Amino acid sequence: MAQQLPSAPFPILTSVSEVREWRAARQAAGEQVGFVPTMGALHDGHLSLVRASLLANEATVISIFVNPAQFAPHEDLATYPRTIEADIAALASLTIPVEGSSSPRTVSALFLPPISALYPSGIDTDVSKQRGTFLEVKGLQEVMEGVSRPGFFRGVATVVIKLFNIIQPTKAYFGQKDIQQALLLRRMLTDLHVPAPLASNLVIIPTYRDAASELALSSRNAYLRAEERPWATVLIDALHKAQQVWDEQKTKGAVVVKDVLEAARASVRAVEKKAQEEGKGVEVRLIYVALNDPDELWDLEKGESAMVPRGKGAVLSGAVMLGRTRLIDNLVFDYPLN
Amino acid sequence: MAQQLPSAPFPILTSVSEVREWRAARQAAGEQVGFVPTMGALHDGHLSLVRASLLANEATVISIFVNPAQFAPHEDLATYPRTIEADIAALASLTIPVEGSSSPRTVSALFLPPISALYPSGIDTDVSKQRGTFLEVKGLQEVMEGVSRPGFFRGVATVVIKLFNIIQPTKAYFGQKDIQQALLLRRMLTDLHVPAPLASNLVIIPTYRDAASELALSSRNAYLRAEERPWATVLIDALHKAQQVWDEQKTKGAVVVKDVLEAARASVRAVEKKAQEEGKGVEVRLIYVALNDPDELWDLEKGESAMVPRGKGAVLSGAVMLGRTRLIDNLVFDYPLN
Repeated sequence: MAQQLPSAPFPILTSVSEVREWRAARQAAGEQVGFVPTMGALHDGHLSLVRASLLANEATVISIFVNPAQFAPHEDLATYPRTIEADIAALASLTIPVEGSSSPRTVSALFLPPISALYPSGIDTDVSKQRGTFLEVKGLQEVMEGVSRPGFFRGVATVVIKLFNIIQPTKAYFGQKDIQQALLLRRMLTDLHVPAPLASNLVIIPTYRDAASELALSSRNAYLRAEERPWATVLIDALHKAQQVWDEQKTKGAVVVKDVLEAARASVRAVEKKAQEEGKGVEVRLIYVALNDPDELWDLEKGESAMVPRGKGAVLSGAVMLGRTRLIDNLVFDYPLN
Repeated sequence: MAQQLPSAPFPILTSVSEVREWRAARQAAGEQVGFVPTMGALHDGHLSLVRASLLANEATVISIFVNPAQFAPHEDLATYPRTIEADIAALASLTIPVEGSSSPRTVSALFLPPISALYPSGIDTDVSKQRGTFLEVKGLQEVMEGVSRPGFFRGVATVVIKLFNIIQPTKAYFGQKDIQQALLLRRMLTDLHVPAPLASNLVIIPTYRDAASELALSSRNAYLRAEERPWATVLIDALHKAQQVWDEQKTKGAVVVKDVLEAARASVRAVEKKAQEEGKGVEVRLIYVALNDPDELWDLEKGESAMVPRGKGAVLSGAVMLGRTRLIDNLVFDYPLN
């Protein structure tokens, strides 16, 4: 790569052949490999995934790759935060003591591929101009985030299967923050009978939240202007209101889908109004709030029944625009993620 | 499986877990695994692939699976020939002496999955009703056979990546008869960085032809009525006419694309006319003849240049309907397939 990289206490691999060689050595050493795919701009949420991998695997590899195929032409590919030096420093600082061993575990390698390694014939964000192999996960890709972002999960599934095939991890780690991504990728692993990682080894780590506000950490939070930050909890506050309705109705039996959703929507609407009145130019806008089946991601609001029966869980998710920044969050009810 | 299978001198595996166990044993024994995916109705063409695999690998596994996803709703999924007893007998009869070894090589295993193993949530031939993970190879899937059969290569790529992930073969064998399939799948392996088989280990075996007539063997030849059989060489005869033009022009320099194609089309048209006049109800109809770049499958007739320069090869392919039977064939000029 033309770019000069900071020195790191772990190898920085940039080609597929380097990764294959590194992986073969791990195999020969009998080591399990944990893998955390990222787009960089690492924050404590990402680092919690890396920590989980360090705890469970002898070797941990992280990838940083801002994947053009998951951005629409009008989206923020060019301006997506790129903080490679800080990312490497953050990864280098991670040290996990291992019970029964005198040497702590640290990151084993960073995979930092150029675009040409993952898209040898190039990649256009305009789907109609793309050539080559792409994956879709029909049904699961069209709901929730997929409604506002057609093509997004196609881009995600395509790059992740490539990364999996290159790294062949024993386990792979994803954040609950992007719950649809994690469940859709697990379905992809099941459908395609991918051997590494097995679907049962896709691990979903709870969303990392700011301790005081419960705001979910996100690389896109960096886009928020100072005056917008106090309003950033609008979505998680709304989801918590809906959770109260879920919990109350669940203790009595089935849950009425529209009651849960209306609690969240009313909460966002109230904040939208408040921002208009006192926000000094801050704009809050609800994109969607949805309740979905955790296995098939069916939209429960469009389902045949208006109720979620006792014993069935659900994913409550939503997106809001805060000024020009798109924030997403979710809560999962009564469903074990791992 | 409910169906009673004939006894075979090799294990018949029907579940993914049985294959994984079989594969792990091959790995432990240090054996290379050759794989021949088929839809059954095995003929000498298939058997030539199996022989090539037996020669090059310590273990050879064949799959037989009639893949619903590659049939359109109006196509012949229900009536596609199924001859499992004869297929097993043919595979059992194959014995290849190995130089330097006293025991000849024979087929190691047959993978005979039920539909539920490859499509756990079922599979509808109507694309709009499908759910789950599907692959597309954009650009390469829309030309040649893909013009008349939209969705065909999507179905092929999807089932083959599943079979590859289950079997994890060292090498996989495909017939030149289905040249677009072989080149598209090789591109899929490259694009997705599939580790087993590597793209360079997808082996393309020359089309197996009837010695006297040069007719390419095909499971669909079984559909031909007795009075249609004498007309079945219409396509390969036309391709040979075009090959003469290619060879003549190539010795002088560049080749004029339309001259090659016109030679083939004129040849088919003459046979169409002859069949009308003397065929006693036999109908011959040209679907297409095309000349394509062997790497990218660009349609050279639609290309910017009307010429194929010296040093560049091409794929000449076509399809004809003979009565209700669709016959395909191809010749590859000046391009090494392996």
